[in-house]
Amino acid sequence: MSKQTMQPQDSNIPRYAPGLDGIPVAESSISFVDGKRGHLEYRGIDIEELAKRSSFEETCFLLLYGRLPGADDLASFVAEFRQHRRIKYSIRDMIKCFPESAHPMDALQAGVAALGMFYPFKQGIDTKQADEEMVHLASVRLIAKMPTLVAAHARMRRGDDPIPPRDDLSHAANFLYMLTGEEPEPLFERIMDVALIVHAEHTLNASTFSAMVTGSTLADPYTVISSAVGTLSGPLHGGANEDVLDMLDEIDSVENAERYLNRKLQHKEKIPGLGHRVYKAKDPRATLLQKLYGNLTQKYGEDPTYAIARRIEKLSRSTLGAKGVCPNVDFYSGIVYRKLGIETDLFTPIFTVARVVGWLAHWQEMLANNRIYRPIQIYVGEHGLHYIPVEDR
Amino acid sequence: MSKQTMQPQDSNIPRYAPGLDGIPVAESSISFVDGKRGHLEYRGIDIEELAKRSSFEETCFLLLYGRLPGADDLASFVAEFRQHRRIKYSIRDMIKCFPESAHPMDALQAGVAALGMFYPFKQGIDTKQADEEMVHLASVRLIAKMPTLVAAHARMRRGDDPIPPRDDLSHAANFLYMLTGEEPEPLFERIMDVALIVHAEHTLNASTFSAMVTGSTLADPYTVISSAVGTLSGPLHGGANEDVLDMLDEIDSVENAERYLNRKLQHKEKIPGLGHRVYKAKDPRATLLQKLYGNLTQKYGEDPTYAIARRIEKLSRSTLGAKGVCPNVDFYSGIVYRKLGIETDLFTPIFTVARVVGWLAHWQEMLANNRIYRPIQIYVGEHGLHYIPVEDR
Repeated sequence: MSKQTMQPQDSNIPRYAPGLDGIPVAESSISFVDGKRGHLEYRGIDIEELAKRSSFEETCFLLLYGRLPGADDLASFVAEFRQHRRIKYSIRDMIKCFPESAHPMDALQAGVAALGMFYPFKQGIDTKQADEEMVHLASVRLIAKMPTLVAAHARMRRGDDPIPPRDDLSHAANFLYMLTGEEPEPLFERIMDVALIVHAEHTLNASTFSAMVTGSTLADPYTVISSAVGTLSGPLHGGANEDVLDMLDEIDSVENAERYLNRKLQHKEKIPGLGHRVYKAKDPRATLLQKLYGNLTQKYGEDPTYAIARRIEKLSRSTLGAKGVCPNVDFYSGIVYRKLGIETDLFTPIFTVARVVGWLAHWQEMLANNRIYRPIQIYVGEHGLHYIPVEDR
Repeated sequence: MSKQTMQPQDSNIPRYAPGLDGIPVAESSISFVDGKRGHLEYRGIDIEELAKRSSFEETCFLLLYGRLPGADDLASFVAEFRQHRRIKYSIRDMIKCFPESAHPMDALQAGVAALGMFYPFKQGIDTKQADEEMVHLASVRLIAKMPTLVAAHARMRRGDDPIPPRDDLSHAANFLYMLTGEEPEPLFERIMDVALIVHAEHTLNASTFSAMVTGSTLADPYTVISSAVGTLSGPLHGGANEDVLDMLDEIDSVENAERYLNRKLQHKEKIPGLGHRVYKAKDPRATLLQKLYGNLTQKYGEDPTYAIARRIEKLSRSTLGAKGVCPNVDFYSGIVYRKLGIETDLFTPIFTVARVVGWLAHWQEMLANNRIYRPIQIYVGEHGLHYIPVEDR
């Protein structure tokens, strides 16, 4: 019996970095974050430009195929999306079997896994490259059907019939329509469109990485996306915008903000929505969402929660902000979604409706040059023990 | 516009190793492989000893809790398993919605994700440690219900009613009973028990790693295991034993074996079931399964496929074997399962029924000292591009 030390004995083994912090796992040309400057590019283009001038559908094309589509490409891409929005009766019957209390992210993970049974996807092991057309079609299906799954479950859990998708609406407008039953006004549509654009991709976070690990075994794309949905469901990844709203509701009024913040700082507790592993300046996505909220309030008035959020941001600037702990995308997204009348537990599913594009872009990029992820462990256990019969233990 | 080079500019960034080959991602004391000697230990005990003297249930306890259970612990652990075998009506209704052609692994991924909706699991972000009792109960539920899910789907896709689990049978015997409707004879039970023991854990392969990546966001255990099931479904990971049978069927007779092998060697093509990323000697699990097959043939006669397999192994010894390319666990497991009368596309689900234990052991080990996996990428794309309106493209 011997016990190994905590450090690898073989000096050729690289340093162990918990969470793979700072360890490269892929070469990629999909997105780039400059955390110090608070800057995010998709395929080399600043997301501010895309949020102002592009659409979610066009951004999907850009992320998946590395270039802005020509007019014909864009038209046929949009038409494909609209054509693939419906989900099968059996998928809806399946959702009926879910308990009323099911979390929408669990429902979505199961729903996406089930999609794979209806659309078989075969790729050869030897070529390591699936048929391009099949990869494209599966990607379109997943992006197109994700909002339908989310909206169908959101309604069916309340006992309402799902609202079938409309093929005359944009991705953003159709999603809001299926959630509420009403065609959204242009401002709401625009806000959802921008929210989807800015959440579509963000390099190798845990969910994207899990899509890649699953995809590296050449599992089919529905399986890959189901894994990523599951990973995003963890409270350390998705769901921070829900925590922000909980915090703002707890603070309750602008006057209480300073006391709340000081108490948190004294106890060295984290403040939801402030700070990001990569950004050391204000997250550009937070700035964009805050502007959109401004447009909303011009028409519908301000929520008290927003005043509290702004107060927290202002107060934290000198203390946390100086240390690079600034508002991230979750700090304002929840406030925006609530203003659109969306239930709190649908915030992470909305994130999924957007991020599925980034997951698929990384999956496609990986297929071209795939190697199965099989890292090593540092063994810290014992050796040479023996089985002892139960009567002698 | 600038194009970055393929190598990281910052010399502090560690070398990029595709597939994380040789990169440590965790400290672990669950299992250890000595690839050169063809040796595998669970918690320090040689699997040969466990295969000979332990049971799957006892091995589960060992893997999860790091020690062989005392008589009382073992009795209550076994009783818990038997109590949690049943799946809810709604899960069976859900399986009815799956298309007949659904692959059992897709059905299992969706089924496991759905389990999570029925057994809510909450863990705090701050403590990073879920309640021990809750972790234990979820682990027992997952291990106990996995065979029921697999068997229910295997029967229901043929239009047969699922066979409810029996709580007077061992894990292995009950699994075979639910698959076939008949209480298995002791030899069959013993073979399934050993097959489950030797497949229960194997350090950080892709599926185990994906369980850890998903789990690192503190996603619930059903979500974590659903991810891992998905990862195992990929043809580069699970399913090699199916390929072995396809090969043996293709070779068709012992006389054709040499010509087949020479052709493969000439074309430098891989031979299913030969070679392993870690083992450079014969996989100890292959040896154990081969012995069990010997017991089967004493009673029921030999299959022609086995003679072909042995011939391939013998012929390849001087060429491939000398280079460390030896039979792995998949080389004989498919032959054994076929002899038990199990359908080919259930081989990977059987792997899952066993491996769920290893996934859970790594998930539990990780929870104690968790850090979210957020690796880095090497950006090889462009910067500073601009949005161009569609009419100008």
